[in-house]
Amino acid sequence: MKNNIESIIKYLKGSNDDFIVTSHISPDGDNIGSTLAMYYTLNKLGKNVYHVLDDNPPQNLKFLVENMNILKSEEVNLDSYNIIALDCGDKNRMCISQKLIDNAKKIICIDHHASNDYYGDFNYIDTEASSTCELVYNLLIEYEKKENINIIDEDIATCLYTGLVTDTGNFVYSNTHPSSFEMAKELLSKGAKKDTIIQKVFQSNPYNYYKLLGEALNTLDVVDGKIASITITKEMLKRNVISFNDVDGITPYTRDIEGVEVGILLKEKKENEVKISLRSKNYVDVSKIAKSFNGGGHIRAAGCTIYSSIEDAKKKIVEAVVKAIQGDKNE
Amino acid sequence: MKNNIESIIKYLKGSNDDFIVTSHISPDGDNIGSTLAMYYTLNKLGKNVYHVLDDNPPQNLKFLVENMNILKSEEVNLDSYNIIALDCGDKNRMCISQKLIDNAKKIICIDHHASNDYYGDFNYIDTEASSTCELVYNLLIEYEKKENINIIDEDIATCLYTGLVTDTGNFVYSNTHPSSFEMAKELLSKGAKKDTIIQKVFQSNPYNYYKLLGEALNTLDVVDGKIASITITKEMLKRNVISFNDVDGITPYTRDIEGVEVGILLKEKKENEVKISLRSKNYVDVSKIAKSFNGGGHIRAAGCTIYSSIEDAKKKIVEAVVKAIQGDKNE
Ligand SMILES: [Mn+2]
Ligand SMILES: [Mn+2]
Repeated sequence: MKNNIESIIKYLKGSNDDFIVTSHISPDGDNIGSTLAMYYTLNKLGKNVYHVLDDNPPQNLKFLVENMNILKSEEVNLDSYNIIALDCGDKNRMCISQKLIDNAKKIICIDHHASNDYYGDFNYIDTEASSTCELVYNLLIEYEKKENINIIDEDIATCLYTGLVTDTGNFVYSNTHPSSFEMAKELLSKGAKKDTIIQKVFQSNPYNYYKLLGEALNTLDVVDGKIASITITKEMLKRNVISFNDVDGITPYTRDIEGVEVGILLKEKKENEVKISLRSKNYVDVSKIAKSFNGGGHIRAAGCTIYSSIEDAKKKIVEAVVKAIQGDKNE
Repeated sequence: MKNNIESIIKYLKGSNDDFIVTSHISPDGDNIGSTLAMYYTLNKLGKNVYHVLDDNPPQNLKFLVENMNILKSEEVNLDSYNIIALDCGDKNRMCISQKLIDNAKKIICIDHHASNDYYGDFNYIDTEASSTCELVYNLLIEYEKKENINIIDEDIATCLYTGLVTDTGNFVYSNTHPSSFEMAKELLSKGAKKDTIIQKVFQSNPYNYYKLLGEALNTLDVVDGKIASITITKEMLKRNVISFNDVDGITPYTRDIEGVEVGILLKEKKENEVKISLRSKNYVDVSKIAKSFNGGGHIRAAGCTIYSSIEDAKKKIVEAVVKAIQGDKNE
């Protein structure tokens, strides 16, 4: 079924079933923000609701889930339930067991990924939206109007604000629309804890992170003035006692250099396994480049894995970016 | 005269005099944004208007002034004129000659600095406002309503958006209010070139800047887990071919560390002259600390100069911050 916000509200309202809210694997801010907001909402509406994610939230989002009971799939034992899949562009990337997916009565999919194939029984997909949190916000505003009730409180506002700022790079990326600012205004008025979110999400890097960043910047390499890369080896991570998952914030440094169009972060996960993050500024579609290495993502932010030495991976990805720059310029 | 947005509109509308728009010394985004927006507006309203700033705009704001004729005081030869002083908290910090200040018919002051003493003949001061650009925006919206005309076009929207994002750290600081987001929404709808602003202002650091940043991070020093400092010597600037004025963006790195309350950036201007930038996260009023060294600023962002060796300056400022942390905690 195609987009239908009305029918989702009607179904949520009428249903006496249990609900599972979940999202994609490797949780990020939009994942945690949208699932928690929906969890709090269904709770408020008197539904039985379970928040299920088999992966743990990253360190900088822990403040949101402090009082939450996030369940793992094996802890859930339900006969009849619906799944609300939020911010999950692919049915196979849901962060719950296949068994739970297979036995769901209905799947309600709310998402903004371009790759979404409308896998839900109900779908509210808007690939132009800043974030899934913006779609949840639209849904809740609509619900409030229709039923003449208040749903969005301080906690829900804080969750939704988190997803909005993490998915827009705090209003930096081009997915920031006037509607995103309207949402920010309303959430701030409704008590979203903006200062806490900013501090926890963006301003609480460990000291070791900055030591690693200093080392990483020493590897900064610019090709043709247009392509910049930073290389982080597993030795660098070990030396600075910082984990593989906690250095993605370094990616923008590769792009934010004068004249640079594509930025590349190479992270060595283990020998012959290099995770690559790509960012572009103006005209290169990095999702295409990532796809050619079996990865994916958005036009200006994408990623992939190359199974080779880090030197070799760098050579391959830079070559692909050089070609893409030439191609996209000629289009 | 105290705040009166109405009387400013009335005066602007009725006056046949020439106008000089100007702002504070060492121009920043709010300075350039608000003065240009006011310049374009007065032009549109058919007034004779001159944009006068004796200091040059920083590199990352040059894109705003490409087609502008910014004058120096000595180029201006006027008999009868008014000054519109924007974003200038102190009559003595205006970036024009004393002669021009002294001979002005009227001074119209639009500003958000806490230190402003209403030195204008007309004053529109709001110390809670995110930026002077937000005050100019309010004035223009009011003007548009009163006169039933359109003033804010793409160019004016772009200028005002620039001041809003530079003075709020792109919606990060606690001076970001719901009204700031309302303004952002409207400016984006009116064609503010957000992506250009973000790229030029925040994402166009020279390669050398990142090399210096790598070195600067090696000097990162954390005291008591609560105070972090970075030291930039004139040798470091020389070695990386980067100018004294182009490294202020490093200041937030000192504050954005887990557990740190006050961040300090020390920059050696010349021997025995050290410029200090202070940032705080939650409870320390750094403007008080800066004041004790004859500096000034806002609660969460302030600055001063200490005339001694950089090692000595560091000792002195860290000592003052330690005291302030103890004091502000006991209050
Ligand atoms: Mn998302
Ligand atoms: Mn200002």
